[in-house]
Amino acid sequence: MRDCWLVSRQAAIAVSVTAQNVTPYVNPAVPTGTPVPGNYTGGLRPQVHFSPPQHFMNDPNGMFVDANNTWHLYYQYNPTGVVAGNQHWGHATSQDLYHWENQPIALFPPEKNVFVFSGSAVVDVNNTSGFFPDQDNGVVAITTLARYYDDGSAGPQTQGLAYSLDGGYTFEYYDGNPVIDSSSSQFRDPKVIWYEDHWVMVIAFAQEFVVGIYTSPNLINWTHASNFSHHGLLGAQYECPNMVKLPIRDSVGGAVVDEAYVIAVSVQPGAPLGGSITQYFPGTFNGTHFETFDSATRLTDFAKDNYAAQYFYGTPDGSNAINMGWASNWQYAQTVPTGNLEGWRSAMTLPRENYLTNATRIGWIMANELVDITPVLDTPLNTTTFEGNGSIAVDYSSVSSGTLYIEANVTGLNASTVTSASTLNISFTSPSSGETIRSGYYFGGDQPYFIDRGLVRGFDNIFFTDKFSTADVWNATSGSWRVQAVIDRSILEIFLEGGVHAATTLFFPKEPLTIMSLATAGLPAGVEVSVAVWSVQSAWAEYENEQGTVLGNVTDSDIGNATARRDMIYEATWSV
Amino acid sequence: MRDCWLVSRQAAIAVSVTAQNVTPYVNPAVPTGTPVPGNYTGGLRPQVHFSPPQHFMNDPNGMFVDANNTWHLYYQYNPTGVVAGNQHWGHATSQDLYHWENQPIALFPPEKNVFVFSGSAVVDVNNTSGFFPDQDNGVVAITTLARYYDDGSAGPQTQGLAYSLDGGYTFEYYDGNPVIDSSSSQFRDPKVIWYEDHWVMVIAFAQEFVVGIYTSPNLINWTHASNFSHHGLLGAQYECPNMVKLPIRDSVGGAVVDEAYVIAVSVQPGAPLGGSITQYFPGTFNGTHFETFDSATRLTDFAKDNYAAQYFYGTPDGSNAINMGWASNWQYAQTVPTGNLEGWRSAMTLPRENYLTNATRIGWIMANELVDITPVLDTPLNTTTFEGNGSIAVDYSSVSSGTLYIEANVTGLNASTVTSASTLNISFTSPSSGETIRSGYYFGGDQPYFIDRGLVRGFDNIFFTDKFSTADVWNATSGSWRVQAVIDRSILEIFLEGGVHAATTLFFPKEPLTIMSLATAGLPAGVEVSVAVWSVQSAWAEYENEQGTVLGNVTDSDIGNATARRDMIYEATWSV
Repeated sequence: MRDCWLVSRQAAIAVSVTAQNVTPYVNPAVPTGTPVPGNYTGGLRPQVHFSPPQHFMNDPNGMFVDANNTWHLYYQYNPTGVVAGNQHWGHATSQDLYHWENQPIALFPPEKNVFVFSGSAVVDVNNTSGFFPDQDNGVVAITTLARYYDDGSAGPQTQGLAYSLDGGYTFEYYDGNPVIDSSSSQFRDPKVIWYEDHWVMVIAFAQEFVVGIYTSPNLINWTHASNFSHHGLLGAQYECPNMVKLPIRDSVGGAVVDEAYVIAVSVQPGAPLGGSITQYFPGTFNGTHFETFDSATRLTDFAKDNYAAQYFYGTPDGSNAINMGWASNWQYAQTVPTGNLEGWRSAMTLPRENYLTNATRIGWIMANELVDITPVLDTPLNTTTFEGNGSIAVDYSSVSSGTLYIEANVTGLNASTVTSASTLNISFTSPSSGETIRSGYYFGGDQPYFIDRGLVRGFDNIFFTDKFSTADVWNATSGSWRVQAVIDRSILEIFLEGGVHAATTLFFPKEPLTIMSLATAGLPAGVEVSVAVWSVQSAWAEYENEQGTVLGNVTDSDIGNATARRDMIYEATWSV
Repeated sequence: MRDCWLVSRQAAIAVSVTAQNVTPYVNPAVPTGTPVPGNYTGGLRPQVHFSPPQHFMNDPNGMFVDANNTWHLYYQYNPTGVVAGNQHWGHATSQDLYHWENQPIALFPPEKNVFVFSGSAVVDVNNTSGFFPDQDNGVVAITTLARYYDDGSAGPQTQGLAYSLDGGYTFEYYDGNPVIDSSSSQFRDPKVIWYEDHWVMVIAFAQEFVVGIYTSPNLINWTHASNFSHHGLLGAQYECPNMVKLPIRDSVGGAVVDEAYVIAVSVQPGAPLGGSITQYFPGTFNGTHFETFDSATRLTDFAKDNYAAQYFYGTPDGSNAINMGWASNWQYAQTVPTGNLEGWRSAMTLPRENYLTNATRIGWIMANELVDITPVLDTPLNTTTFEGNGSIAVDYSSVSSGTLYIEANVTGLNASTVTSASTLNISFTSPSSGETIRSGYYFGGDQPYFIDRGLVRGFDNIFFTDKFSTADVWNATSGSWRVQAVIDRSILEIFLEGGVHAATTLFFPKEPLTIMSLATAGLPAGVEVSVAVWSVQSAWAEYENEQGTVLGNVTDSDIGNATARRDMIYEATWSV
């Protein structure tokens, strides 16, 4: 997309930016100008998933990658409590999508009785907005300003801009806000991308089940272009729409052969598994109208803890997109035990690379491939290859992060010899409490992969569903199947077949899970199982002071290492 | 639809029906000419849900109502085992949709190495087929003949006819079968209806995610008319499509204002909750092509135990349709404990009336309203009305059926006074084992209704998900909300708001659940809660001999009572 920035036919439109600054409302309890300190050592605190230093986080917002390959993650943030409310935009940056540096809060409410709801950000290299006469790295945040009344009821949700002269660290509100006015309390979550010669916004008319598509030459003047309405699962609300251009690859992990667009829509409440879920629709976009390839409804995740994912703005045209989602579900996000035990609630999913391809039997799929995790890989704890049936057990109680990366590659599969008794199981257990996460795959029959968190007992909630599964048809042509897993204290993520299916699952053990086992059964001779189990470094540990507190990673981070990691991940990401 | 039968423009087409009978293959282990006897007294055996006398049942098939208002239910049946296989069409009839008379097996395989898979039936009153020169009650079954090889692998699935001269009790195969040939092993489940002047079939090209629409003047010669493809959730297979004409009502339970069509598609495996699920699409049909009203995906059930529902052929034009589904899920249907404990597996859902309307906020909905249950209601155990907060407890250990019907009507709700702490909970408990099903509703917030079967412990299976929920937005205009529940030994069905949302949930307790409680909390003054709890009669008890065995209900049934019941249910059903 960077190339596109150079051909803004509308850049010549003069925009009058007045000098009157909007002074934001700063709740006295909210720190300004400094990162919020956080203790990342708690037993439930993920070590390679981003979580806020303290208090409550929900949707990822405003995500973009800048010209220096720094990834910017903003997030819906209540800096004063462990439940939703008092919405700000928290901020963190990363060179590799695994090590995150907490930054000062980026967006405060423009005035009292307004929440800064979800939105997106773009780099306005050609100064289409007029905010950046002297720079090409100006950042514009487009966000929902959600008014509420003193009795707590919701007022109008309008769309406003804030711009950053320092590359996304501090913002000023545009004094001509709102740029899209509304009297509705159900109009929110603008996501903006660049299309050839103009900006395009997708935004939710939440309770009308409509994704509005708007266009603008300058981010300030918006024209309604079309609606994408009543697609897929409706639940009781649409939220957080995304539109993203993706490469089409000729196979899973294969060569780019074309490109297409995807609209993703998050649904909350009323998803099939309860609460929140995200679905997506591949299709074509002509600058004003989106047409789906078909009328199918596809889900980004087969568990229920991945909502409102957003795609980073600014990834190179023709390369995979990258998204991260909110690893929770509104049904229990505000009651999970991390709030009372450790003073924080919610993490983001791990970063996922996205492209379109045709998967075995099920056709169009947006791959959710784990971004190369080598920046946080530590030591291989076990690498084993065996034929047919075998098992390994790894005691990882001495791994200080408590975090593992597991990969199993199975080759030599043959549909005529595999039966419904051919299985590969992966489990994680606490030897002291007996709590267990069990998961596994049946190579025959309906070829389900299942995850069961019901034997972990640190959280009782009527919406905390225990079991998830998907049908993952392995590739009979290649005779191979692959699973990757990251377990990170209270989050398990599973990736099947390089992201053809993926699942994000929270769990809250009373005692740490420290025994990992993998076993196959019923596999015929000729099937080879190659397993690698790695300990994973804490991405936070290096930023901690003697008290275990991460004050603000910026000053502590090892720039040399960060640059090396960035180059490595950049290479790994874009050189596919 | 009955009126339509009178205007068959194609009825004059002469069809040559040869006299060569096809002799079916009868496995020596399968009884012929007599109903299979069954013991319906087991502790897990539903008393008002249909289940087969013994062995394994899956999809409902061939459902129609005849001119005498007898409801015919056929079903996929393995008469020789408690897992799927050896597929026949079992048969049962009812006057009221609750009392079912077991009939002799209706369809045996036409030859060895063929299974009689799912299909449908119609009454060919105008003898379009030519099978019925002397009668207007001829029944034609249209079914998938699924060939399999000696090694167990699947052969071609072709579509064939069988016709019945005795109103659907015994069938002869048409000797011109197949009427739709195919070399595919993934082409099945024809459902036929009448449209103005011709027959219409919907059928699944299962792994291509296509519902084929065929037309025929005579049930014998079929023309491919169009495809309805890649709609909604795909999972890894489409199965058991239905097309049905439904009235459109001006509100839930309101007056008929128009009519439309629905295509329902069952998906298996790979549903969002795991395994099997059914989705539907309202739209228009012109005799050859179906167009959806919108691109939304709607599910028939918010739990995971309702699959492959079929709509009875022959319900009067302009009246609600009626469907029943298979109350199970392929993920565990063949392993549930009823097989080993009691020699049977699977029940059907209770009958549900269907129409289209616009529900509060969520728009188009196909109501799944419980068919009037009065034919099996016994004694009111508790009728209580209270204002605001209250509770009742009912010990139903003395109810011999173990089956209850519960209805709660809440009125006087006001959005400004109801909070997220306003709840209504219904639970069922075993005082000896402590096993509990909990369920309930939050009147505020996201307005979820939840069901949790995870505290019932008679079945451990990695796919037996514990918790289900939906967002059920109550009607702020009327200020009312309604829940109905039927608990029947090992099945719980929940109906919200007259079928705006419905759920079917299996559970397998170690000890019978015998304490029912209902309690409200956090409800403001002015809210009235009216509760009725009824014991429900066993629909099987009256057919049992001294040994507790239901041999064949036909000869035992009280025709007088049955007629009275039929009239009552008919009145209740069609007089809306």
